[in-house]
Amino acid sequence: MKTLQVELAERSYPIHIGSGLLRQAELLMPHLAGRQVLVVSNETVAPLYLDAVTAALTDYQVETLVLPDGESTKNLQTLEKILSVLLEQGFGRNCTLIALGGGVIGDMTGFAAACYQRGVAYIQIPTTLLAQVDSSVGGKTAVNHALGKNMIGAFHQPRAVIADTDVLGTLPDRELAAGLAEVIKYGLIRDAGFYTWLEQNMTALRNHDTAALTHAIEQSCRHKAAVVAADERESGQRALLNLGHTFGHAIETGLNYHDWLHGEAVATGMLMAADLSARLGWIEPGVVERIAQLLTATGLPVQPPAIMTPELFRRHMAVDKKARDGQVYLILLEALGAAVVTGDYADDALAATLEHFCRTAQPA
Amino acid sequence: MKTLQVELAERSYPIHIGSGLLRQAELLMPHLAGRQVLVVSNETVAPLYLDAVTAALTDYQVETLVLPDGESTKNLQTLEKILSVLLEQGFGRNCTLIALGGGVIGDMTGFAAACYQRGVAYIQIPTTLLAQVDSSVGGKTAVNHALGKNMIGAFHQPRAVIADTDVLGTLPDRELAAGLAEVIKYGLIRDAGFYTWLEQNMTALRNHDTAALTHAIEQSCRHKAAVVAADERESGQRALLNLGHTFGHAIETGLNYHDWLHGEAVATGMLMAADLSARLGWIEPGVVERIAQLLTATGLPVQPPAIMTPELFRRHMAVDKKARDGQVYLILLEALGAAVVTGDYADDALAATLEHFCRTAQPA
Repeated sequence: MKTLQVELAERSYPIHIGSGLLRQAELLMPHLAGRQVLVVSNETVAPLYLDAVTAALTDYQVETLVLPDGESTKNLQTLEKILSVLLEQGFGRNCTLIALGGGVIGDMTGFAAACYQRGVAYIQIPTTLLAQVDSSVGGKTAVNHALGKNMIGAFHQPRAVIADTDVLGTLPDRELAAGLAEVIKYGLIRDAGFYTWLEQNMTALRNHDTAALTHAIEQSCRHKAAVVAADERESGQRALLNLGHTFGHAIETGLNYHDWLHGEAVATGMLMAADLSARLGWIEPGVVERIAQLLTATGLPVQPPAIMTPELFRRHMAVDKKARDGQVYLILLEALGAAVVTGDYADDALAATLEHFCRTAQPA
Repeated sequence: MKTLQVELAERSYPIHIGSGLLRQAELLMPHLAGRQVLVVSNETVAPLYLDAVTAALTDYQVETLVLPDGESTKNLQTLEKILSVLLEQGFGRNCTLIALGGGVIGDMTGFAAACYQRGVAYIQIPTTLLAQVDSSVGGKTAVNHALGKNMIGAFHQPRAVIADTDVLGTLPDRELAAGLAEVIKYGLIRDAGFYTWLEQNMTALRNHDTAALTHAIEQSCRHKAAVVAADERESGQRALLNLGHTFGHAIETGLNYHDWLHGEAVATGMLMAADLSARLGWIEPGVVERIAQLLTATGLPVQPPAIMTPELFRRHMAVDKKARDGQVYLILLEALGAAVVTGDYADDALAATLEHFCRTAQPA
């Protein structure tokens, strides 16, 4: 087992990464605030792992809530459902929520913990690669609004993150690839050496090679922990973690959060951000080509769905958390391994990128 | 104009108290985070003051949302309505919400600001005495759940509080009295001298005497600011501000938030807490009598509504944010001007208090 630490003074917490951790209740127990525990999971994950997590918690009042799987449950109505269970069971301010699932369960359970009685404890047990390398770490919690993804939320740090690499064995290939999109992101924005390692090891990763996956998770969490420690509430460099996300969110909104996985939308979005960076003369066209090749090798899409037009991109991009007084801010690349957040780009270049990608988009 | 400061390092903010402040846009402008402003108000307050607040904001994109008046609107559905306006108008992370109204508008607008894009700026312009002396200061934001009051919320400090004493001129007598309940609370928990001053000046206060009201607001905000600065997230002494609130919330829940004002429920709750304190031998019975007399002189109820039984009190008190692992914590008096939060009280004594008050309760 490897343990990394997210350094946030009195809110610091460990990320445990390794095999079989899900069944090790001794990792969980030090972080339970009191005797009342609610485990929130979904219909896909619960049959596989819920018993393993609750088995050792015999001295606790353990309640469970199993939600339908999928991004469409991530809304205020489901949030209210979680809060209702807590209230019906008489849970006090020293209760603990455990998120057992992917990003949807983690984000929503974290937000429920953030706002129940103005804040209670929670623990992340991420069961997808995407959640392990990204969403479970750093305290960003949220639900979606019909008009925008993750628009309702809070910064609320978990007490611990327990990433059991065994769970990736049951993860479908497509979800593994979607998680790798966020892994690639860390290489692009912070670590050219790691990016090269990914190019060399993508076959092993896609074949569920445990050693390769563990290394990728560790490196990703190390980067995430460092960024969060430096800028918890995204007033600066944390925004760089959103590379590809403004274009990606537009795709997800355009598809009404159906058909594409978050990581797939981010993958195409990262390529679009790289394309725009090249049009602005900030990186060589060869870098864009290299990114397209790695994404393709990962099994990720490099073109938006046919439904997306430049107008649709612009409309959905305007509703972005990085927008200020109507100006859309983007994360762009200055090199492989170095990114900036900026509102200072030629609109012509953005128009050209949108035209280029929408023209090449193939019918769904 | 008097200005107090809530000292919270980089989140410090001023409380301005005085006549005609609502119309002084120069008090507002330094605290607007960007050019997008949403003023949230209610159907009672908006016709009186909304134009005065928005008149000077000509260089801003100002949107307004006028909600129905009353506690029953303070829920997740109305929260979603506020968030929808922000999204429909393309408001970015540097927008500012202004709460123009009483505690319901303030709590709900503050919570909308807390969770819109994980936190945007807001300003409190409280228009009731209760909001001016209590709910607008200190960053407690929330909406109600069907199973409990203020159970969904966040700590999120405003950028400024602007308490215009002129608005109290249009405040109905009953609401003025409800606000005075929270004023009396500060005397009971922290300031015996102020409590005596209140006994001597209650007639002037009830007659809307400006000088007396201004003094009462200043003293109350001074106490509130000091407590919040010492314990922002209620891990200790801030809980003392909840004197009477556990009994009071039970009454409000029992009445389904109808008929009684929050301050009225708190008044009866404070007397019940004092009665319990006396039964435990912590204060003299004469102190309880003195409190009953001041509450009566203020025009506040000193008996719960007839609907309340000891069983109903206990059931609703169990769902309290101060409960831990099922144990109900109460704020009790050790003297006039000194309070403690404790779970260490004889249940017999609580039973006797509940019996006594429910027996004397008169039919509604």
